[in-house]
Amino acid sequence: MRLLVVNPNTTASMTATIAAAACNAASADTEIVPVTSSMGPASIEGYYDEAFAVPGLLLAIAEGEASGADAAIIACFDDTGLDAARAMAGIPVLGICEAAISLAAFVAQRFAIVTTLERSRVPIETLVQRYGMAARCKVRAADIPVLSLEDPASGATERLRAEIRLALTQDGAEAIVLGCAGMACMARELQAEFGVPVVDGVGAAVRQAEALVALNLRTSKRGAYATPLSKPYAGILQCFQPPIRP
Amino acid sequence: MRLLVVNPNTTASMTATIAAAACNAASADTEIVPVTSSMGPASIEGYYDEAFAVPGLLLAIAEGEASGADAAIIACFDDTGLDAARAMAGIPVLGICEAAISLAAFVAQRFAIVTTLERSRVPIETLVQRYGMAARCKVRAADIPVLSLEDPASGATERLRAEIRLALTQDGAEAIVLGCAGMACMARELQAEFGVPVVDGVGAAVRQAEALVALNLRTSKRGAYATPLSKPYAGILQCFQPPIRP
Amino acid sequence: MRLLVVNPNTTASMTATIAAAACNAASADTEIVPVTSSMGPASIEGYYDEAFAVPGLLLAIAEGEASGADAAIIACFDDTGLDAARAMAGIPVLGICEAAISLAAFVAQRFAIVTTLERSRVPIETLVQRYGMAARCKVRAADIPVLSLEDPASGATERLRAEIRLALTQDGAEAIVLGCAGMACMARELQAEFGVPVVDGVGAAVRQAEALVALNLRTSKRGAYATPLSKPYAGILQCFQPPIRP
Amino acid sequence: MRLLVVNPNTTASMTATIAAAACNAASADTEIVPVTSSMGPASIEGYYDEAFAVPGLLLAIAEGEASGADAAIIACFDDTGLDAARAMAGIPVLGICEAAISLAAFVAQRFAIVTTLERSRVPIETLVQRYGMAARCKVRAADIPVLSLEDPASGATERLRAEIRLALTQDGAEAIVLGCAGMACMARELQAEFGVPVVDGVGAAVRQAEALVALNLRTSKRGAYATPLSKPYAGILQCFQPPIRP
Amino acid sequence: MRLLVVNPNTTASMTATIAAAACNAASADTEIVPVTSSMGPASIEGYYDEAFAVPGLLLAIAEGEASGADAAIIACFDDTGLDAARAMAGIPVLGICEAAISLAAFVAQRFAIVTTLERSRVPIETLVQRYGMAARCKVRAADIPVLSLEDPASGATERLRAEIRLALTQDGAEAIVLGCAGMACMARELQAEFGVPVVDGVGAAVRQAEALVALNLRTSKRGAYATPLSKPYAGILQCFQPPIRP
Amino acid sequence: MRLLVVNPNTTASMTATIAAAACNAASADTEIVPVTSSMGPASIEGYYDEAFAVPGLLLAIAEGEASGADAAIIACFDDTGLDAARAMAGIPVLGICEAAISLAAFVAQRFAIVTTLERSRVPIETLVQRYGMAARCKVRAADIPVLSLEDPASGATERLRAEIRLALTQDGAEAIVLGCAGMACMARELQAEFGVPVVDGVGAAVRQAEALVALNLRTSKRGAYATPLSKPYAGILQCFQPPIRP
Repeated sequence: MRLLVVNPNTTASMTATIAAAACNAASADTEIVPVTSSMGPASIEGYYDEAFAVPGLLLAIAEGEASGADAAIIACFDDTGLDAARAMAGIPVLGICEAAISLAAFVAQRFAIVTTLERSRVPIETLVQRYGMAARCKVRAADIPVLSLEDPASGATERLRAEIRLALTQDGAEAIVLGCAGMACMARELQAEFGVPVVDGVGAAVRQAEALVALNLRTSKRGAYATPLSKPYAGILQCFQPPIRP
Repeated sequence: MRLLVVNPNTTASMTATIAAAACNAASADTEIVPVTSSMGPASIEGYYDEAFAVPGLLLAIAEGEASGADAAIIACFDDTGLDAARAMAGIPVLGICEAAISLAAFVAQRFAIVTTLERSRVPIETLVQRYGMAARCKVRAADIPVLSLEDPASGATERLRAEIRLALTQDGAEAIVLGCAGMACMARELQAEFGVPVVDGVGAAVRQAEALVALNLRTSKRGAYATPLSKPYAGILQCFQPPIRP
Repeated sequence: MRLLVVNPNTTASMTATIAAAACNAASADTEIVPVTSSMGPASIEGYYDEAFAVPGLLLAIAEGEASGADAAIIACFDDTGLDAARAMAGIPVLGICEAAISLAAFVAQRFAIVTTLERSRVPIETLVQRYGMAARCKVRAADIPVLSLEDPASGATERLRAEIRLALTQDGAEAIVLGCAGMACMARELQAEFGVPVVDGVGAAVRQAEALVALNLRTSKRGAYATPLSKPYAGILQCFQPPIRP
Repeated sequence: MRLLVVNPNTTASMTATIAAAACNAASADTEIVPVTSSMGPASIEGYYDEAFAVPGLLLAIAEGEASGADAAIIACFDDTGLDAARAMAGIPVLGICEAAISLAAFVAQRFAIVTTLERSRVPIETLVQRYGMAARCKVRAADIPVLSLEDPASGATERLRAEIRLALTQDGAEAIVLGCAGMACMARELQAEFGVPVVDGVGAAVRQAEALVALNLRTSKRGAYATPLSKPYAGILQCFQPPIRP
Repeated sequence: MRLLVVNPNTTASMTATIAAAACNAASADTEIVPVTSSMGPASIEGYYDEAFAVPGLLLAIAEGEASGADAAIIACFDDTGLDAARAMAGIPVLGICEAAISLAAFVAQRFAIVTTLERSRVPIETLVQRYGMAARCKVRAADIPVLSLEDPASGATERLRAEIRLALTQDGAEAIVLGCAGMACMARELQAEFGVPVVDGVGAAVRQAEALVALNLRTSKRGAYATPLSKPYAGILQCFQPPIRP
Repeated sequence: MRLLVVNPNTTASMTATIAAAACNAASADTEIVPVTSSMGPASIEGYYDEAFAVPGLLLAIAEGEASGADAAIIACFDDTGLDAARAMAGIPVLGICEAAISLAAFVAQRFAIVTTLERSRVPIETLVQRYGMAARCKVRAADIPVLSLEDPASGATERLRAEIRLALTQDGAEAIVLGCAGMACMARELQAEFGVPVVDGVGAAVRQAEALVALNLRTSKRGAYATPLSKPYAGILQCFQPPIRP
């Protein structure tokens, strides 16, 4: 089984973190194919960055599917471009937010997502509502830029820990979801430290993607995710129109 | 007052329809500036088309704001790219779905949106839930391609009428919202024919945008719509990075 | 265009405040017709006062419509008597709570209403739920009697400011809605002071009423707002039965 | 124990029906005090009639409390004026819609309310949402004027039966709530006929009121139902200000 | 009228407390039949204890119905086994949580449940959501073991009082619901002390059960509560199969 | 990895069906340990059967954990006893309803569950609400007894197919969830026949359980699923108290 894991931002070092977490989580016979998006912002912090990350992300998934990937994972906690990718691709596509939430719900009645910047809190709350978990899941922001997670001197992990502590003591959280792909490798350590389940979305998505492939479940093409209709494109996006739409 | 009205698909004839509806609705001292997006699909039918419409749409709004527009309207009923545009722009930005819904809620307790293709029904239902109107508003699809609305021989308006009739008799709808920018000029005629309020989102958004400008209300930059952070971009999207981000 | 703006309490000085805010917000070619209700309580603070404000309010709207008003605004943040007025009148009717909320939702994802007395907090929360905004809007009370807003020595505006500060720092509010018609003239000053959008319902309703009139949208008479049926009335209310029902 | 049962419309024959149902339901040691409102419309069909029924209703409850009633029941299925009455009165006040719903929820997971006119359907749906039962309870209208229930030749009961049948076969209803005080005496017969619980709100409210009195539970005066503040009244309503407010 | 009041835990001293509260609340002509479950845990603290309390509880209700009881009450605030009991029994069955909530909703817009251990908080929150009261009711735990309520030296009532105080001052609660059958006899005293309605579920259920019996309302056997089908049982539970299923 | 798959009813032939589906879905290195509950009803059809299935189910899980199972699956679509099992066990426990729903939500925006008897429809709807999917998932019953699924002559699969067809054409379902463990082996065939994803909960739970074990995620013992407290048991259930509670 080949799982495409797309980092929809364009920072290769973050792809390395994501790939490590994915490999760690995958079954022995699963090949992880990590990809850094070829166009768009260096990190995704809010709605605007999301918008410009989507074309590169979709291109990467289309190319990955053409190269034989069995499923694709979008490794950004905003589940950026997830609906478009599902409509486009024949293979299953998973977002790491939805994947993390679904596993957290199996091990805790109440849980909290701790994300990076305040500007990402409400977008994630909106996802939580769409996924039907608003009554069970609270979202907190630790006030740390995404790329600061790669810099040990930034104090980012201390602020993350402090926010986890607040989630446990003030929100009644029984488990923690790490709200950024850049946190993917910290789950095990934080779980040991805090004594509650700590869910990383990358690992969660890898295992859920394996599940869909093993069970032969692909995105329904009836209704909202119907295959895109063929139509003319104008302007700069026109050039990669053919490879993107199957 | 100058209102930018962006057609986020790349079909100029549809922009003309939208512009006519906007001009019809605007105050005497409002200048309507219609713009056709310079890149992306010829029509927006589902999540995939939406994704590729957003960069061109954001570019058009950024250019419009730089040229002195007081507010911007996104003339696609999916409210495509609305959150990103609000984060990017200093001026207010409105989607025609949210604008239509807000006015419909002032004239009816229960109403229905009639849109084009079945593949757009669930995306609009998701918007309706986000806008808090799921208990009051039902979404129906008339099974008509967006651009068929421009072809009198397509039978599109007959199918639209049939679906409106079902909304009134089977759903208890007290008013109708036209669920596609391409229907913008039909509201008056259908209202007369069916004897209930028929809301066109383009006109609704024009008047709501005028309201925001007159009342000096601009998008809050605290929280979810904070101004995007400056950061490196990679690839093909890199070239129009400066004009897009203020 | 003539807009009737009814103060449903019987304090004329408060009508003057409301009228000033309405005139300030209105288009150049709109005539604001302010009216003080001729019967009922001097201020509306809670459910009981609301009940006795409704007959005078409906009478004022019926008379205003008969005199040629194009739309009516109920200038009390409880949206007192709104449903009854919509059923009665042929012209559109707007409440200032619903109008303020709809504009706040266009400029912020999360916002807070700051009202006067604690006893009005839950009634407004109930409105917020009905308008579908419970997940996005929190209600706070500043513990100030309605009429104290007219007395500079009362300390009312200081308490209002303190509550706004709490909404911004503790609730994640990105914008503020002023939860009482008596606060109508403070929006501009508070917006400058706090650096977030501050929405006054009177101004919001004036512009939304203009929108409905311009777009030829009137209350649907199909369903919940069907024209009241003619029927005998008993007792003291009998005398003004004819002018009230069209 | 003395229970005031107020018919908030001004049709004495309907009060007789209500009184009979109340007496039938009451404990042996409970005295039912039926009252016809002294002012307002002959029947309550929609929001407008509701508005003019409230002052007379509140007057009746105030007088009843002054005369020693232990609790009051508002015998109109719209729960007309309920919040105002609770704020005003020291004694508990119950609406027949909320009372019926609460008992129906004890004997069925899914149930339906069958009311009179279509114009009352949405107002009752709004109550059902407020009472938290939207997922369990559907509202249907049998298209019968309220007072036609008193006329055996009107065909009203046949239409009511037909609508109950639809609720059972099409909505999955497991129990029926009669959605009008005028239907109060039909519950027993319809229950026998259809083989499912049929709940009449008048009887339900009588027993719930007895429960509140027996358990010494009175409306909380902390928060939303705080005792109305003393204040000047203007106009025609001024005359009965003293007896109404305690 | 004979009301069976089952204590589903196996601690007889707690049954005595419950019986006292039930007798206190009952009408003069109602006979209270208190029963201690004959098998299962000594107290019910969380989901696991609930599971093992259910067979004994159902046996007690089946025997009570066979002995002529007119209705049954499950005197545990988790409403343990309520759905199964309703399906099994021909007589009405009430849980004390649902009964308390329904009365609290008649005397307050916002209220709080104060229960014993933190582990019971989320199960009760889940009930509150099912009963449609999540927007009106908050749940708090006082961190007191169930049986400590019987020990004056445990400090349990002081902790209960402290939590009630927090509910009133921090949550905006207007009334309090006692969230454990073991608190049944404290309602009157706490109500006097705090000056807000304090609802005990045992008393509430007694009066609601009387209401159902008096109004001839029994559990609907159409749909979710259909009479269990006869089928083979295996193992240790086989022996009391006949008395349990009618 | 060893996965315990408990059939909580006592029909061994159904365990065989479940075991086959589990083995089919499992990874190569996963050992499926199927267990038939040793006490309780032959099939679980409604709340009553559920109640008596729980003790045997918990016993089976406790024994399985003691024997070295890494996770446990409850193979009944009502997710019978799931909360109690999570509180009891140290290993993760999954229900097949929650597992199926979580995978269906990854491949479709709208889907339908088709279950056996009408009496199971509302209990499953209640689960769907708890799992946050009420807006996306409809429940239908095919009117077939659970054990009839094992009898080719019963016509059960024809009725199942007919109901699936209705879900697709009338509800807008984009995928189907099989709502009974007895249907576990039909997913592949029905998926091929209807051309939409068909999800079997047993297979879904096997893969989700593998995911939890691989990612080292166990039920949180903080909050709702805290380890049961040690306490005396009375009566017949007393005998297997030690093995059940850790």
